[in-house]
Amino acid sequence: MPPKNSNAQVATEEDVSAPQNITDGGNYVENLYFGVELNCVPDLVTQLEEYRREFDFITVPLAHPRNERDMSEGAIVEEEPFARSDMLLSSGQWGSLIIGKISPWIDLDSKDVYNRKNSERVLLQELSWASHLNLPALILPTPTHNSTNYAQVVNRKLQGLMYMNLWMRVPLMSTWQMLHDDETQITFGDNHRATQDPWEHWNTFRTLCEHSDKLCVALELTENVPHERVISRWLGEPVRAVIIPTRIFTTNKSGFPVLSKAHQRVLQMFFKYKIQYILSGPARHKNSFVPYRQYVQFLYSKSPQPTYDESFMTPYLDYLQAPLQPLMDNLESQTYETFERDATKYQLYEDAVFECLTDMKNGGKLEGRTHIVLMVVGAGRGPLVKASLRASVRAGCPLKVYAVEKNPNAIITLKNLRISMNWGDQVTIVDSDMRVWNAPELADVLVSELLGSFGDNELSPECLDGAQRFLKGEPDVWFVRLTQDIEGGISIPASYTSYLAPISSSKLWNEVRAYKEMKHYETPYVVKMHNFYQLGESQECFTFVHPNRDEYIDNQRYINLSFRATQSATVHGLAGYFNSLLYGSVYMSINPANHSPGMFSWFPLYFPLRDPMYVAKDDVITVHMWRNNNRVKVWYEWSIVSPQVSPIHNVGGRSYWIGL
Amino acid sequence: MPPKNSNAQVATEEDVSAPQNITDGGNYVENLYFGVELNCVPDLVTQLEEYRREFDFITVPLAHPRNERDMSEGAIVEEEPFARSDMLLSSGQWGSLIIGKISPWIDLDSKDVYNRKNSERVLLQELSWASHLNLPALILPTPTHNSTNYAQVVNRKLQGLMYMNLWMRVPLMSTWQMLHDDETQITFGDNHRATQDPWEHWNTFRTLCEHSDKLCVALELTENVPHERVISRWLGEPVRAVIIPTRIFTTNKSGFPVLSKAHQRVLQMFFKYKIQYILSGPARHKNSFVPYRQYVQFLYSKSPQPTYDESFMTPYLDYLQAPLQPLMDNLESQTYETFERDATKYQLYEDAVFECLTDMKNGGKLEGRTHIVLMVVGAGRGPLVKASLRASVRAGCPLKVYAVEKNPNAIITLKNLRISMNWGDQVTIVDSDMRVWNAPELADVLVSELLGSFGDNELSPECLDGAQRFLKGEPDVWFVRLTQDIEGGISIPASYTSYLAPISSSKLWNEVRAYKEMKHYETPYVVKMHNFYQLGESQECFTFVHPNRDEYIDNQRYINLSFRATQSATVHGLAGYFNSLLYGSVYMSINPANHSPGMFSWFPLYFPLRDPMYVAKDDVITVHMWRNNNRVKVWYEWSIVSPQVSPIHNVGGRSYWIGL
Repeated sequence: MPPKNSNAQVATEEDVSAPQNITDGGNYVENLYFGVELNCVPDLVTQLEEYRREFDFITVPLAHPRNERDMSEGAIVEEEPFARSDMLLSSGQWGSLIIGKISPWIDLDSKDVYNRKNSERVLLQELSWASHLNLPALILPTPTHNSTNYAQVVNRKLQGLMYMNLWMRVPLMSTWQMLHDDETQITFGDNHRATQDPWEHWNTFRTLCEHSDKLCVALELTENVPHERVISRWLGEPVRAVIIPTRIFTTNKSGFPVLSKAHQRVLQMFFKYKIQYILSGPARHKNSFVPYRQYVQFLYSKSPQPTYDESFMTPYLDYLQAPLQPLMDNLESQTYETFERDATKYQLYEDAVFECLTDMKNGGKLEGRTHIVLMVVGAGRGPLVKASLRASVRAGCPLKVYAVEKNPNAIITLKNLRISMNWGDQVTIVDSDMRVWNAPELADVLVSELLGSFGDNELSPECLDGAQRFLKGEPDVWFVRLTQDIEGGISIPASYTSYLAPISSSKLWNEVRAYKEMKHYETPYVVKMHNFYQLGESQECFTFVHPNRDEYIDNQRYINLSFRATQSATVHGLAGYFNSLLYGSVYMSINPANHSPGMFSWFPLYFPLRDPMYVAKDDVITVHMWRNNNRVKVWYEWSIVSPQVSPIHNVGGRSYWIGL
Repeated sequence: MPPKNSNAQVATEEDVSAPQNITDGGNYVENLYFGVELNCVPDLVTQLEEYRREFDFITVPLAHPRNERDMSEGAIVEEEPFARSDMLLSSGQWGSLIIGKISPWIDLDSKDVYNRKNSERVLLQELSWASHLNLPALILPTPTHNSTNYAQVVNRKLQGLMYMNLWMRVPLMSTWQMLHDDETQITFGDNHRATQDPWEHWNTFRTLCEHSDKLCVALELTENVPHERVISRWLGEPVRAVIIPTRIFTTNKSGFPVLSKAHQRVLQMFFKYKIQYILSGPARHKNSFVPYRQYVQFLYSKSPQPTYDESFMTPYLDYLQAPLQPLMDNLESQTYETFERDATKYQLYEDAVFECLTDMKNGGKLEGRTHIVLMVVGAGRGPLVKASLRASVRAGCPLKVYAVEKNPNAIITLKNLRISMNWGDQVTIVDSDMRVWNAPELADVLVSELLGSFGDNELSPECLDGAQRFLKGEPDVWFVRLTQDIEGGISIPASYTSYLAPISSSKLWNEVRAYKEMKHYETPYVVKMHNFYQLGESQECFTFVHPNRDEYIDNQRYINLSFRATQSATVHGLAGYFNSLLYGSVYMSINPANHSPGMFSWFPLYFPLRDPMYVAKDDVITVHMWRNNNRVKVWYEWSIVSPQVSPIHNVGGRSYWIGL
């Protein structure tokens, strides 16, 4: 099911067509896409034919592995070509069945100048050759702590790549880490640990290469498996392939290869991404590589399959959408249809109205009256009217309903509903903007669904502050109070709170960068985040309570939040969520900590950071967030001030704002 | 005297007109520009009249200092206006004689929400009022370790400022620092020290405000004076005023105010910048403020006055120029004129040729011959020809000179010189590009002046590699060798080495930013750096030796250099210098460590950093620099990889390159 904002304007016209990530990450598939890594390929055509029966592609060295050639100037030019002829396969075959591998012996950061220069020439030669063949991807040797020159040469080539991606081979753990696995050992400081951490090597390399979206990761599993939080950090990285060495398999009773529970858990974490799997190393079991693939495929089939809802969300994974401007635009029929399909959400509303009416009835509110007055502000095509009427029946509490709606198209639907559902006089349909309507009487209950992904970001506070004119209330008694002793009118929702957490997501940041304009780095996007890693539990940001009985209503907010990094990472921005107290005991939440099960109306908000920020383990990440306003608009500004200081984003709402 | 590159193309057309920094920094003046800070101004017109007799401007609070007003919503609106009428002075007077001051009591980061919001409103009110008056500058209260919200409000206002600058009042030392002056005390870690360091507070504030060039510093002297290196860090900052409190003065025997030696030294460091001085606090000596001003003016007159050369350089201070493209362009007459005026440089060349000819004569090179053959490649209008002929006379060693020049306009001058100076057959003028000329005989000495600010950056290596065809030489004897035992031809210069150092310069970085294009952050600029602070001694970068007798000549270079930060600072880029061994004992250098006295032909090179990088005390700053080339061009790439990782700048020479 498409999300709430499926019909909202997307950020640029070019992008309206289709979500971008159908092909690169995020899609569920029936069969895993599987390849096998070969190190010695005397006869490419025959071997390709052989492996194609069971595998989707093969990974082959561009040059013969023993062909460590001397390419220094003046060296004797070898008669034999370093690589196979491009005529062996069709360009279609090269472009879909073959993944190349750069010679692993090159060392571009060798202290030996001769070796360094020779390695540069070999790397450039092989990169050119792979481009010439138009391979889909090329596997680069693992970087080390000192790979700056390696990065420089790769970076130059990255600028010109059109089709081919470069996959950096990165082991899940370094040999050093496997030998010193125990984190409680204090012999080695954090600094030393960092120099031995493959993620750090990758992070330095890609930062030097300016976070190019052509530079991806081929993550190689290792004998040992690190802490789950270390693995989850990779979920924010552009992992395009998982390399599974045959040596990590054990043998079961029937003689077939199987994986340890720990390794199974790693694979399960990656199964939900559309990536490639590559078997590596010699086949150590009968029937060559086939049983390995079958076993991993079996693990995949055993893993939790996506629900119907999740499958529908697939096209929206990591797909950026600009937030709605609900006050400035009228929604379309299809958008209403999408919203109304969220049964969970309206059930929660019904429960909230039910609790509220029950409290009112028990509290003596009906004494001397025939009914409770309930107003739905922003009634749309009537889902909240229906939910309220259902609650009225359940509570045995008679209701008079006003359905206020500013969209003339939705009014037509409401009027038709009134007839078809026999609402009669119980429902009054009001064709007006709630901010200007003169209500004929005061309401006991005000029901609205004006919340955005970040709670207040679609200006629910400003709208409800305007609408509460026609809500009953005694200012001296009312404040943040929700007992059964009802004295004044009630707003459903009663309150809502936004939540923030720093996230790492190379994918989302590159999606923002693709717009090639600074203002997009200062715009929060609605997005079903998928290829991301959250650095800590989200924390409360801004809270709004309704009705607001403050003498002077002030919807500006300012807060700072601190998060401690449990491991080093690169922060690409902030994730925004909300939860809301509808009434009494009924909550509605998209905060991961307590997300309302099955509710799909809201995707989180992504606040980008203009420059990705490296944070070391135990660094405190301090986030500042402002909600500012003036006469005509509301906007957010945000900044991270530690461990490094970013500029304040979206100064004065210059890049993004919501019109009043 | 204008620098070597005065006629080179500057980076954009808009900037061709005139150097930008005549009005903001860098100019020497006869009298210091002096003001006085007043805290209580009951009658602005009378007081202005009174102080104008002795001072250039006065600094006054915008609101009455005791006027801590309640501007929260709903507060009783005061009848009395918070500020004076704008009719008191003409707009010309407001715009030149008055510097405003924001109420010092505001606290925008107060934990008390009421106090915070009231402070925001007061600050915005006063900022608007100062803009309305069109004041030249406005002094902001000192920030603390926790001034993020203060920065947010100021930042919003900075976006709209046209004329007015904001001067942040920053003390040279905090009270805490004065109480814990002894750095050897280890009770307080570096982290704690940082939270107490006014520079850190300033640095965080301006980083949040995205390094705005409207946000400057009014540096306030304090009773104690920190280490000189702490003060020199301010030389890279946009210090626009030095505030001198009267309380730091002592009284001499005659009863007049004087400053300690330490305070005098601080002032002397700032005298070479064109900034304002502001007396602050009550006059504690007879004749009110006048003796303070006279005393500081006296110190200024005693300080080393700029030399004639330095005065001429003034318009070029901090003025960016794109490096020459000497192979692609012909120089103009005026440019030659400028170059030829550098007597020091040609004296060094004369000395080098003299030493060389003496060695040759003593080494028996003249045996069986009547003369030594010397070729000037790139003879221009003849300065090296003249220097060589003078050296020939001094050494008593007869010379035959070939003057090779590709610029047809310079050839005309050379031919006229040949007649006017009676060179006769001793000088042969060759109208040709040295890279294609077929010399009629081989040379004993090849003299050239092809060096740029960074040594090799005007492609001297490539030119001389081409020209050495017509230099005598026995490859098996020649290598990096400069003894008197001359066997082959000699190149003057014999070798040259570039130097690099990280620098902090808010000024230079903002000049680059003003171009508003990414490629300018990836272009090294020739600039007489003035408002800058170098973070350590420069280190050797690339070396070239001539003639180059390598079997395969390779002018690609790659190096990494490490610098330890002696204090926290913000790195804005790298300074590039060179030195050169001309011959024997004759060196020529623009490296600050051993700059050839009086030589002005080269200004340093500034390699910008796209994003300023904060470095903490004791951090290691690791710089990587590449000199890359292909068939048609040469370019540099650079990166800093620690303490943080920058992207590699100028990938593949995409933004800046020198054509072959």
